Amino acid sequence: MQDLTIVKIGGNVVDSPVELLQFLRDFAALPGFKLLVHGGGKIATTMGQRLGIEPNMVDGRRITDTETLELVTMVYGGLVNKNIVAQLQALSSNAIGLTGADANCIRATKRPVKTIDYGFVGDVAGAEAINTTTLSALFQAGLVPVLAPLTHDGQGIMLNTNADTIASVLAVAFASLYRVKLLYCFEKKGVLLNPEDDDSVVRHLNPAKFEEMRMTGQVSKGMLPKLDNAFHALQQGVYQVVIGQSHYLQEMASDAQEGTLLSLQAS
Amino acid sequence: MQDLTIVKIGGNVVDSPVELLQFLRDFAALPGFKLLVHGGGKIATTMGQRLGIEPNMVDGRRITDTETLELVTMVYGGLVNKNIVAQLQALSSNAIGLTGADANCIRATKRPVKTIDYGFVGDVAGAEAINTTTLSALFQAGLVPVLAPLTHDGQGIMLNTNADTIASVLAVAFASLYRVKLLYCFEKKGVLLNPEDDDSVVRHLNPAKFEEMRMTGQVSKGMLPKLDNAFHALQQGVYQVVIGQSHYLQEMASDAQEGTLLSLQAS
Repeated sequence: MQDLTIVKIGGNVVDSPVELLQFLRDFAALPGFKLLVHGGGKIATTMGQRLGIEPNMVDGRRITDTETLELVTMVYGGLVNKNIVAQLQALSSNAIGLTGADANCIRATKRPVKTIDYGFVGDVAGAEAINTTTLSALFQAGLVPVLAPLTHDGQGIMLNTNADTIASVLAVAFASLYRVKLLYCFEKKGVLLNPEDDDSVVRHLNPAKFEEMRMTGQVSKGMLPKLDNAFHALQQGVYQVVIGQSHYLQEMASDAQEGTLLSLQAS
Repeated sequence: MQDLTIVKIGGNVVDSPVELLQFLRDFAALPGFKLLVHGGGKIATTMGQRLGIEPNMVDGRRITDTETLELVTMVYGGLVNKNIVAQLQALSSNAIGLTGADANCIRATKRPVKTIDYGFVGDVAGAEAINTTTLSALFQAGLVPVLAPLTHDGQGIMLNTNADTIASVLAVAFASLYRVKLLYCFEKKGVLLNPEDDDSVVRHLNPAKFEEMRMTGQVSKGMLPKLDNAFHALQQGVYQVVIGQSHYLQEMASDAQEGTLLSLQAS
């Protein structure tokens, strides 16, 4: 089985040209088949302010209304995505920028309205929503897909979709075809025992330890869905999930020499 | 030799949701390998106004400064391109949206400064700037490339490039690999003998006739570079060039039953 490395970077990397370039250098140097999923960054917010698009908040949740959908399609699918692709090309990495609509890579369903109408937000049903055939053909052609956090509904509508989710669903979809490493890059060096201490990285995390940290409140609210996604991916056959800082991408990709390595094994 | 149909649509089609959908229906129904190149439309101008980006004009020419480059990368590469791709997907056409940076499809050179500095405008040197290998791999994989009028310099910078030029350079690059039909869709039903009379379409145009119309001023200024490009494409081995209205795409693609058929043959 060939290796496939799926890397997700968050908005913090996208927002800093210096960090982004450093990250892209390391990403370009990773061997084998690989795929990058990027978040949006603050640029959508600042661009939205300049356009006079007020964030539409309901119960503290941001709603993707029509204007916001246009905004994120422009900024994530155009500005951020093409900036990354052009820089990877300059680093001799044959990147191809995609949204879920392109080549029907990722199909999603507009989130059903229960108590809140999230607007044009797409939920990806599962691995069957991923067009692994075409993405594999791109790998075989020497291409490096760069995915924006956007999907489509198959009826002509783009949808806003969380980048963490896209990364984990892709990892699961490819688990039967490749030995998939899923690397989540975020602000911290890994999952921290003490949120105040950047060096208190938990080097190995299994479900029991995660449950313990969840109970004691050591895992921050933002990390919970990321870790839930990650353990789900391991249960579905993904080979390795590592969470860490973009500066240490190379080490994370090399047998998790940095960051937090998630595992299903009891410690 | 297999057929490849390259279609270029202008901003007038992009700007009208109704016309665009009608056009995309016809485009989706075209048989064989095909590729769409789209212009920008007025949406970049209106979006630029909302963002407070003043058009930077020098001697009546629009300059692509840094802000304008960001604007067109967002609008052409994101909003317009993904809107087209999502709609084609809904029409069961497996579209994949690309700029010249994606998969290194089209490399360009930033226009050298002579009297005017056009800013981030890319000139495509010739057919050798086109990555026909990867684009052919996409055709073989059943994909329909949809190209935004953007290229890159290979050094990490996106460039603004005329969509007519992209269409004709692509057609020339593929002329040795496929029997290429190049269809230019614009506002009029074809090249008109009398610009006031929409039905005075010149059904066949050869270089002698073009020269005659140029001398008498019958060809409008905007049409001159389009026709120069088109005759150049024929000289370089492109099988057929047809200029007409997007409503008649099907007929234009079927042995030029509508529009103006360009030919090198003396009449």
